[in-house]
Amino acid sequence: MNDIARIGIITVSDRASHGIYEDKGGPAIRDWLQKALTSQWQAVARVIPDERAVIESTLMELIDREGCCLVVTTGGTGPAPRDVTPEATEAVSEKLMPGYGELMRAVSLRAVPTAILSRQTAGIRGKCLIVNLPGNPSAIAECLEAVFPATPYCIDIIGGPYLETNPAVCKAFRPAGATK
Amino acid sequence: MNDIARIGIITVSDRASHGIYEDKGGPAIRDWLQKALTSQWQAVARVIPDERAVIESTLMELIDREGCCLVVTTGGTGPAPRDVTPEATEAVSEKLMPGYGELMRAVSLRAVPTAILSRQTAGIRGKCLIVNLPGNPSAIAECLEAVFPATPYCIDIIGGPYLETNPAVCKAFRPAGATK
Amino acid sequence: MNDIARIGIITVSDRASHGIYEDKGGPAIRDWLQKALTSQWQAVARVIPDERAVIESTLMELIDREGCCLVVTTGGTGPAPRDVTPEATEAVSEKLMPGYGELMRAVSLRAVPTAILSRQTAGIRGKCLIVNLPGNPSAIAECLEAVFPATPYCIDIIGGPYLETNPAVCKAFRPAGATK
Repeated sequence: MNDIARIGIITVSDRASHGIYEDKGGPAIRDWLQKALTSQWQAVARVIPDERAVIESTLMELIDREGCCLVVTTGGTGPAPRDVTPEATEAVSEKLMPGYGELMRAVSLRAVPTAILSRQTAGIRGKCLIVNLPGNPSAIAECLEAVFPATPYCIDIIGGPYLETNPAVCKAFRPAGATK
Repeated sequence: MNDIARIGIITVSDRASHGIYEDKGGPAIRDWLQKALTSQWQAVARVIPDERAVIESTLMELIDREGCCLVVTTGGTGPAPRDVTPEATEAVSEKLMPGYGELMRAVSLRAVPTAILSRQTAGIRGKCLIVNLPGNPSAIAECLEAVFPATPYCIDIIGGPYLETNPAVCKAFRPAGATK
Repeated sequence: MNDIARIGIITVSDRASHGIYEDKGGPAIRDWLQKALTSQWQAVARVIPDERAVIESTLMELIDREGCCLVVTTGGTGPAPRDVTPEATEAVSEKLMPGYGELMRAVSLRAVPTAILSRQTAGIRGKCLIVNLPGNPSAIAECLEAVFPATPYCIDIIGGPYLETNPAVCKAFRPAGATK
């Protein structure tokens, strides 16, 4: 496919969405993707509150109407009553991808024992992969470094555009025989 | 908060609940907590059979009526037909915490390959964290050592009392900026 | 029990079931089990398409009618729209065994970063353990080596036959006190 890849970046945060503090998670994701991707892409960014219905409708909008092949969220994955990003992700996904959450928690656990409090998951809706990242901007790069090598091939499999990466930032892996 | 923390300890075992053998799991949890916690706490202990309805009602009693901020179970997490503690935990939880089960299995796996048979999980109900431990008393300490460093901060986040630990037993971790 | 153990081997693949290419996953499982098991067993093999209803009915047939104590599947665990083996496994299972999938992904991750795309799980139905393996024949042995040491004891617990293994291939572990 020659389409320009559209990638959704959703910051889920009551405070950032109300302007109480600056969104740092969304820009951290965009910066990392800018360094990692060498094929053409464009960001579709949103900053929304921790409301399950809003998270679900935003995911559906970015996937079903905006045509994103990948939507990355930041925030709302902890144990607090307002943290409902994983539940919203599961609700709109046709398939769950438990390996993403497992690996991100394992990697974050090397830095802090509270990594086990993160409930982040991933799922597939149509031709789009949804990945939850933690809210803490400093944990975003380490999580993307862990799971992004598998992500272009995942997007190939579900029928999305062919993502190419800068191997100095992220060595995308495709099995022998995978075709562009 | 200055409340004395109430911690539920539920032994789920047909044999222990019928007096066929002595409950060793419950006392092992209490002993470990006694060494690990330096802030004030009191145990609310129960010994019940492997009946899903009884496990659910006991969890709800300890959380909703007894005001526990943490409930730890032992037993009923294996593959046997009577092992239903994870199902009961999921049924009463508003949120699941998959990182707890993943880490406990990974840690137990260093000791025995049958660690993968343990289906233990964790969840949040109201202002209480529920954590399933294995039934084997010798595995209880290794599981608590693995997950307890993240647990006081989890209880902070959900609005429970401020737990303090003896760092020689358990280094509780709170991110910079977390306040008492 | 002195019954000969019956072990189901289900290849889930549109192409293999339509004769478009040769089934390599099923024979790879059979070969590995032949080397690993020293007690008597017989294979009950099926090659079926990636149709959720067919996978479910085949699992039920092998368990409820054919009396298998273990059913191993290969294929259909990825993110593609046709990959529905985990969903079918969950639908017919009374209990899920998350530790199997976690360990298999962790082991496969040492070989390829795309291991996180595998959604394989395991579950219990009656006196039978169901285990999903990946479709790639080269990943089958590494996954079986990882999870099989715990499997004979799991089958003991759920009331199946006593499996014995060749320790040079697979060191089956049973806790002290487990009886034949």
